[in-house]
Amino acid sequence: MPQSPTTRTSRKGATRFLNVEEPFRFFKGGLIPRLDIAFETWGELNADRSNASLVMTGLSPSAHAASSEENPEDGWWEPMIGPGKPIDTRSNFIICVNSLGSCKGSTGPASINPETGKQYRLSFPDLTIQDIAAAGKLVLDALGIEQLRCLIGPSMGGMSGLALMRQQPDIARHFLAISTAARAEPFAIAIRSLQRETIVRDPHWQDGAYTNEDWPETGMRLARKLGMISYRSGSEWRTRFGRQPQRRYSPRLFGMHFAVESYLENAARKFIRDFDPCSYLYLSQAMDLYDFAEGYPDLIKAFEPLQLQSAKIIGVETDVLWPPHQQREICQGLSAYGVDCDPQMLPSVQGHDAFLVDYARFCPAIGDYFAKIK
Amino acid sequence: MPQSPTTRTSRKGATRFLNVEEPFRFFKGGLIPRLDIAFETWGELNADRSNASLVMTGLSPSAHAASSEENPEDGWWEPMIGPGKPIDTRSNFIICVNSLGSCKGSTGPASINPETGKQYRLSFPDLTIQDIAAAGKLVLDALGIEQLRCLIGPSMGGMSGLALMRQQPDIARHFLAISTAARAEPFAIAIRSLQRETIVRDPHWQDGAYTNEDWPETGMRLARKLGMISYRSGSEWRTRFGRQPQRRYSPRLFGMHFAVESYLENAARKFIRDFDPCSYLYLSQAMDLYDFAEGYPDLIKAFEPLQLQSAKIIGVETDVLWPPHQQREICQGLSAYGVDCDPQMLPSVQGHDAFLVDYARFCPAIGDYFAKIK
Repeated sequence: MPQSPTTRTSRKGATRFLNVEEPFRFFKGGLIPRLDIAFETWGELNADRSNASLVMTGLSPSAHAASSEENPEDGWWEPMIGPGKPIDTRSNFIICVNSLGSCKGSTGPASINPETGKQYRLSFPDLTIQDIAAAGKLVLDALGIEQLRCLIGPSMGGMSGLALMRQQPDIARHFLAISTAARAEPFAIAIRSLQRETIVRDPHWQDGAYTNEDWPETGMRLARKLGMISYRSGSEWRTRFGRQPQRRYSPRLFGMHFAVESYLENAARKFIRDFDPCSYLYLSQAMDLYDFAEGYPDLIKAFEPLQLQSAKIIGVETDVLWPPHQQREICQGLSAYGVDCDPQMLPSVQGHDAFLVDYARFCPAIGDYFAKIK
Repeated sequence: MPQSPTTRTSRKGATRFLNVEEPFRFFKGGLIPRLDIAFETWGELNADRSNASLVMTGLSPSAHAASSEENPEDGWWEPMIGPGKPIDTRSNFIICVNSLGSCKGSTGPASINPETGKQYRLSFPDLTIQDIAAAGKLVLDALGIEQLRCLIGPSMGGMSGLALMRQQPDIARHFLAISTAARAEPFAIAIRSLQRETIVRDPHWQDGAYTNEDWPETGMRLARKLGMISYRSGSEWRTRFGRQPQRRYSPRLFGMHFAVESYLENAARKFIRDFDPCSYLYLSQAMDLYDFAEGYPDLIKAFEPLQLQSAKIIGVETDVLWPPHQQREICQGLSAYGVDCDPQMLPSVQGHDAFLVDYARFCPAIGDYFAKIK
């Protein structure tokens, strides 16, 4: 891997880090003196560096999308990436980058500002999807990859992918967009805005000065539960939970009677301390503010510069947060400028989360596309 | 109006009160020494008392469904009830009852316990939909009405109506159910449970010992915003707000950029002090716990005792909280036992709230039914 005086890579288990020892300027202004970008790779980069694909992630995942020799623990997309899997690492070199602004290895609001020796927290510059894209691009540069076989973007990762293609229109030959959107619509904005409000109105938030001992647990708990409500679907829960009572947790005042409530409680408990509240707020807001059409007369025209050969756009009929008509919009935009674009709306009941759980539908849909593209 | 030693009626403007000076026993046990039920009426009860219809309300409305000489202010269902309106008060005698447990005139957790001189708050007995039905029935008894022409139940009011028919199967000749359900499903439970959790986790909740000076504003604010998100629909908001910025409120940290956010903020501000937090919690939980099928082998069989002549079941395609398949269930149950049941799913974009705003669709649907029933 090429090293420069200001950019080197390091490694900790399966996680590699791009360590950039020079300022990173943010899209809306502001800079940080240096940054780290955490990433993992699977498979081998071929001699002409033409078999690389990049996975940009949703809000919360780390770069650990799949297991490897260095880290045998299941990744967040384990059934999707590996030898003989839909994204086959026998023939593909796969990179997954932890988003700038996250708290899973890449620099974000929870990172130490080398100039103060303290966490950035609210002094972290305004974060945009464009910055996440630019930071991902630094990893490709460091790996010597000029063009991707496929740019893969589920959820927020699809926005990051669109932003990256805006920055370099020939960055990928193919685009696999999953349950994503070119810009947030008011329903998703309302959900995410309310999630952020639950955090900043928690007295333990303390204007970002929370500590490990004094953490905005209530805000994070409520935000996560609202997240789960928006990520899944009523039709899934009807079959899965019905009106079953729950016995896992003690009943509390005005709650915790039903299985669906203990399911949400369990999801919240796992999340509260696992994700930095500031990171959550920065990333969540970046999604709301991103608009792929910005600077163009309409959304369709914004797709004109992209130089893709093909795209596969997968959506889920029960997804209320990133609804199917938003996948179709992306497809319309790409098709308008001659990209061979295949939209596929899956009838999964699991809503937005389907790409993380309904592998029976997602594996063939993605595997077929990957087998086809060059 | 007949008066008894223990039951009398009083009046304050348009609002009438049934004052019951004897204990009221709750379905799950517990009692209160006396109760008031607030109600309003429109039109004239005919000589054989056969033209009365009862409106049971959703969670938050008062008994002031429509204006009258005594209170010319618009009611919450103003375009629906009145002379020449779909529910025509020239030929119908209409009663609207404020639910037991509410804070709009009827006895509830915010009422003074005559035995202590203090508000009941959490010492109010466990409240069920059955109790709301029984309290409504007391008003009918006091008015000398043995059978209703029509029992009208939008939202929670439909549950109360079903519970009332369970208590007295011939209480109504006709049933108009609107955007309601025979029991809550897990998606609605999840939403309401989270709303309740936002309130009880607000430090100002103080285990129900909040005061006017120290009110759980944050909890009520978040609960109301989540309510609005569940009451409307993404498709409405897409057209109505899109990605329009907002200028009504100062931007706040991580929020208040978009018109949809100021819309929710405005709705929250109107609600926070207008509804008692304890009342909200009691009523919200009653909806989750109610199950019309309880005591029956399945939901369909639970409809067997009802002695209706006809029913009209109106739902809204975009309602995620009380979804159309739950209206169809009610219709299946009624039809299975010979009730002439007409289901109508309206394509309104306003979700659950459509019956309060989409009068262009709801007025003819309800007017046609009312013109037909005897």
